[in-house]
Amino acid sequence: MERDEYFMRIALSEAEVAYREGEIPVGAVIVINDEIIAKDHNRVEQLRDPTAHAEMLCLTAATTHLRNKYLRQATLYVTLEPCPMCAGALQWAQIREIVYAASDPKLGFSQYTPAILHPKTTHRQGPFCDEALTLIKRFFHERR
Amino acid sequence: MERDEYFMRIALSEAEVAYREGEIPVGAVIVINDEIIAKDHNRVEQLRDPTAHAEMLCLTAATTHLRNKYLRQATLYVTLEPCPMCAGALQWAQIREIVYAASDPKLGFSQYTPAILHPKTTHRQGPFCDEALTLIKRFFHERR
Repeated sequence: MERDEYFMRIALSEAEVAYREGEIPVGAVIVINDEIIAKDHNRVEQLRDPTAHAEMLCLTAATTHLRNKYLRQATLYVTLEPCPMCAGALQWAQIREIVYAASDPKLGFSQYTPAILHPKTTHRQGPFCDEALTLIKRFFHERR
Repeated sequence: MERDEYFMRIALSEAEVAYREGEIPVGAVIVINDEIIAKDHNRVEQLRDPTAHAEMLCLTAATTHLRNKYLRQATLYVTLEPCPMCAGALQWAQIREIVYAASDPKLGFSQYTPAILHPKTTHRQGPFCDEALTLIKRFFHERR
């Protein structure tokens, strides 16, 4: 899907910003009706805040922007499968859809049963898995 | 333990503030070496931010205050068992100990397997379960 590629490319460019800033390179955007209402990247080191994942920052920005704690019409594009914290936050927001580039077999929410997401939320893997993973691997390789 | 009662009473008074502000009444404090470094209550409605749980606000305040993304020496006192989002955040912070007044058989993190918490984190139920639950029940009863 062209739409998926368009938005995931922007999430990926956010991940590249994180990489340049010395953060684990993950980026995200939140979209409603083909309009981006939030985009950000991981800022855990910059803010020294373990909750400052790309998804959490986008979620807070989007709900604040909309003045609504729910994101029932929104799609999250994120370069890595969300962790349980982020999945839990997306559950509270009742987000409509989650599209992630790379799955995370160690820390991804899909490891957990019962499912953490809201029952109305759908999720699927989208484009640019290789690009997202390459960036993350390069980050950790350089720090070894 | 006197210490548990002292700190949980402060968490409970934060929950009472939340109640008066029309928030689901949950309060929390974070303690290191018997010193409170963060205290707050649920602010989801006020901020229209589904991530603004008492635990999340305390966690961000504590790590920002310490300029350290880890809380390996800290104890969280919270009036209700944390949800998966908060448990996930506490996992990233590698918090030492979680003490909660009331367990949450519906939405508490302990429903989830594998465990969401960091392996070094301990958790237990503390004092004032009845007081914490009474406040929450009163809140929902008034809204029915």
